[in-house]
Amino acid sequence: MSAASIARRRDETLEIVAYERGAHTSYSACGIPYYVEGLVEDAERLISRSPEQHRANDIDVRTHAEVVAIDLGARTLTVRSDDGESVEGFDQLVIATGAEASPPPIPGAEAIEPARTVDAGVRLRAALDRGGRCAVVIGAGYIGLEMAEAFVARGLNVTMIDQAPQVMNTLDADMAAHVQEAAECAGIRVVLDCGVEEVVTDEDGAPVEVRAGGESYPADHVVIGTGARPLVELAEDAGLQVGDSGALRVDDHQRCPGHDGVYAAGDCAESHHRLLHRAVNIQLGTHANKQGRIAGTNATGGDVRFPGVIGTAVSKICRNEVGRTGLSEREAADAGMKIVSATIEDRTRAGYYPGAGRIWVKLVAEAGTGRLLGGQIVGAEGAAKRIDVLATAIWTHLHVEQLALLDLSYAPPFSGVFDPLLIAARATAKLL
Amino acid sequence: MSAASIARRRDETLEIVAYERGAHTSYSACGIPYYVEGLVEDAERLISRSPEQHRANDIDVRTHAEVVAIDLGARTLTVRSDDGESVEGFDQLVIATGAEASPPPIPGAEAIEPARTVDAGVRLRAALDRGGRCAVVIGAGYIGLEMAEAFVARGLNVTMIDQAPQVMNTLDADMAAHVQEAAECAGIRVVLDCGVEEVVTDEDGAPVEVRAGGESYPADHVVIGTGARPLVELAEDAGLQVGDSGALRVDDHQRCPGHDGVYAAGDCAESHHRLLHRAVNIQLGTHANKQGRIAGTNATGGDVRFPGVIGTAVSKICRNEVGRTGLSEREAADAGMKIVSATIEDRTRAGYYPGAGRIWVKLVAEAGTGRLLGGQIVGAEGAAKRIDVLATAIWTHLHVEQLALLDLSYAPPFSGVFDPLLIAARATAKLL
Repeated sequence: MSAASIARRRDETLEIVAYERGAHTSYSACGIPYYVEGLVEDAERLISRSPEQHRANDIDVRTHAEVVAIDLGARTLTVRSDDGESVEGFDQLVIATGAEASPPPIPGAEAIEPARTVDAGVRLRAALDRGGRCAVVIGAGYIGLEMAEAFVARGLNVTMIDQAPQVMNTLDADMAAHVQEAAECAGIRVVLDCGVEEVVTDEDGAPVEVRAGGESYPADHVVIGTGARPLVELAEDAGLQVGDSGALRVDDHQRCPGHDGVYAAGDCAESHHRLLHRAVNIQLGTHANKQGRIAGTNATGGDVRFPGVIGTAVSKICRNEVGRTGLSEREAADAGMKIVSATIEDRTRAGYYPGAGRIWVKLVAEAGTGRLLGGQIVGAEGAAKRIDVLATAIWTHLHVEQLALLDLSYAPPFSGVFDPLLIAARATAKLL
Repeated sequence: MSAASIARRRDETLEIVAYERGAHTSYSACGIPYYVEGLVEDAERLISRSPEQHRANDIDVRTHAEVVAIDLGARTLTVRSDDGESVEGFDQLVIATGAEASPPPIPGAEAIEPARTVDAGVRLRAALDRGGRCAVVIGAGYIGLEMAEAFVARGLNVTMIDQAPQVMNTLDADMAAHVQEAAECAGIRVVLDCGVEEVVTDEDGAPVEVRAGGESYPADHVVIGTGARPLVELAEDAGLQVGDSGALRVDDHQRCPGHDGVYAAGDCAESHHRLLHRAVNIQLGTHANKQGRIAGTNATGGDVRFPGVIGTAVSKICRNEVGRTGLSEREAADAGMKIVSATIEDRTRAGYYPGAGRIWVKLVAEAGTGRLLGGQIVGAEGAAKRIDVLATAIWTHLHVEQLALLDLSYAPPFSGVFDPLLIAARATAKLL
C-alpha cells in the first residue's frame, strides 16, 4: 500500500488496483504483541489505513481477493474472490506478497495459528481472555520474547523454548546473555539448546502441553515465533527469479530482473546487504515501507534507488532495550572477515542523575583499518535508539578512532560526559 | 584532570602536579541545577573524582593553590597558596583554567554569586532551604532554563527574563517556541525582548527584586545565566595567543602555537568548527574532556588530533528534550550559506503505543547539493538523543536524500515505521 499511495500522489489519473486476500490493509504486525498484552486496547489502533481510507484516496482496494496466477506475457492476473475467478490486466505490477510463518516440522505445530495478522491477534487475545495459566513460546527471537513478555504481563506462567544455545540469534552470545537475564528477571522461564518434539492438542485443536528435550511443559496457550519465509510461489510460478535467500530477486530499483514494469517489495523481496555484498531477506516494516515507496515511485516514471540494508533492528524486551546493526562478531567471522571487538558496560545517564541504568555496548571493527562493521546495544531506557548512531557511522564508513572523537551530545539526563558509544569506540580502537 | 589522568596512565614515572585554586577536582558543573532542584540529594555525588582519589593515582593535586603567573621562558609557575607564594618548574604545561560567569553590566548583578561550582550550588540550595517565594532567572539559555525548572520544582514563582526575542538562541526561533511553550506549561513566566536594568539587593546583599523593561519583579532568589567567558588572562599575560573567540588559540593537537610543550584544553580554549571553518569557543564538558585527554596524550609523547566540533548539544527542559547540532538556519545565513530547511512534527513512538509524545525535527541542508548542515530536535522522551544521528551524518558529509533512506531502527516503542529523522530528511530533500 506504500507503493500504491505514492503512485497515487505522483499521478492523479492512474488507475491503481490493490488485491488483498485478507480483510485489512496497512496494519502494523509489529504492534500485535502489544495488543495481546493489552498495552494497546483496541485492535483498530493497529490499522494505519483501512481499505475505505485507501479508496477515498482513489485506490481501488479489493479485499478478500486473492491473486492466484500471474501471466507476465499477457500482463494479466487471475483473481479469486467470493464472486469466483476473474482475469485482470495490468501495465505495471508491484508484488508485495509478504511472508508467512514458518513453524518447525513437528506434530501439532500446524494447529497453532500464527499471530501475524490483526485478526489472528484478536483471536489470540480472546483465547487469553477465556483463561489459562501456562503458556509456552517456541522460538526465542525478538517476536518470541515480545510475546513471552505479553503473556507474563497477563499473569501467565511462561516458558520460552529454543533449540539454539542463546536467545536472539541476531546478537552475539555475550550480549544475548543480558537479554536472557532481563527476560528471566521478568519471570520468563528460558529453556535453550532444546528441540521441541511435539505440541500436544486436545480434540478441539487447543494446546495442552509442549514436549521438548524429553520434558513436558503444560501449555494452555502456545505461540510459535520461529521465523517466517517469504511468500514467493505466486511470483515464482510466473517465472520471476528467487534468490539464494529464498526471496524474490530485485535490482536496486526494486525491479524484478528481466521483466519490465514488474516490481517486488517488502518481506517477499531481497535487499542488498551493504556489508556482506550480497542479497539478504530481512523482514522488517521499515525496509518494506521504503521499498514500497521506491517501487511505487519507479513504477510511475520515477528513478529512485534503494541503497540496501545493514541489518539495523531494535526491540524492547522486558523493560530492557536491545539494538543491533551491521555485523555481529559471529556474522563477520562467518563472512571470513578479520575483526576486533570490544564490549563496555556503562550507565544510560550521568551516574548521579536519577534513573541511570546499565547499558552494554559491543562494537565490531575491521582489523587493521578499524572500520566500524557492527554494533550491539542492550540496556535500560535510552539505550536502544543509540544504535542509529552506529548505523549511520557504519553506513558512512567511519572508523572507530573517528567515532571515539565524534561530537555527540552530552547532558546528565542522557549520558555521562563521554557517551557510552564513544567509550566503546575508544575501547575498540585500543585493540587495533 | 583528564589530561593528568591519561598522562599518568601513559607514563607511570612522570611527576604530575595539578594546581587548583578551589577545593574540588573533577566535578560536574552540569549537575548543579539537578542538585539545586533536589533530584540529586548530595552534592558529593557531583564529584566524579576527589583530590584524594587523584592523589591515590599518584597525581600531586594541590588545592587552594592558584597559579598567578607563568614564565614560559624560564618554564616556571608562580603559585599562591595559604603558605604564600612559591615558584614551581615544569617541562610540559597544560592550561585548563576554564571560564567564569559573565553577568550583564548592571547594578546589583555583582552581588549574585554564579552557581558554577559545587560550593556555590550548595550555598544556593541552602538559601532556597531558608525560604522565599519568588525567583528571577536572568538569561533564557539552557542553563537559565534548567535553573528555572529547578526553582519551579521547589515551589517558587519563577520569572525568566532575556533581552533576546526567544529562549535558547542556539535554536532557530520556530524551534525555540516549542521550548518556550514547554517552559510556560511547567509554570515558568517567560519575559523576552526585555533588558534587565537592576538587581535590587538589601543591605546584606540578598536580592529583593529585579527591575527590567520598566517593570519590577519581586525576587527572593536570583540566578544569572547569561553565559561565561573563557579565563585567559593568566595565559595571555604569559604571552600565549588569544583568538577572536576570546579563548586561547590552539592547534589540532591542543598545542599553544609557538610554544613547545604548552597545551590548552577545555572552556578556556578554542575549538575548530568543522562547518564554519574557523575557531569557536563552545564551553561544554564533552569537548573539555576530549581535549584534556588529547593534551595529556600529546604532552606524554602521543600524537592525537582533536578533530573539532560541530556544535552538538542536548538538554532536558521541563520534561521536554532539546537537541541541536551543526548550523541553525540563522547561523548558516550569517555564514553566507545558501540553504534549504524543513521542519516536521511527528510522534516519538508508534501512534498506538502508549506514551507516544510529540517531536519536532528541523533540518538545514546546503541548497543545490543537499548536504546536511544542521539539525534541531524538540520533543518528548526519546527525542533529544536522536540528535547524535544527525551529528554523525553531518560529520560524514551525508546528504539529506541519503539520510532519508538510511537503515535506521524501527520498533513501535521507539518510533513509527519511518523514524522522524527519515521523514524530516525526505521533507528537506523535496525542497532541493
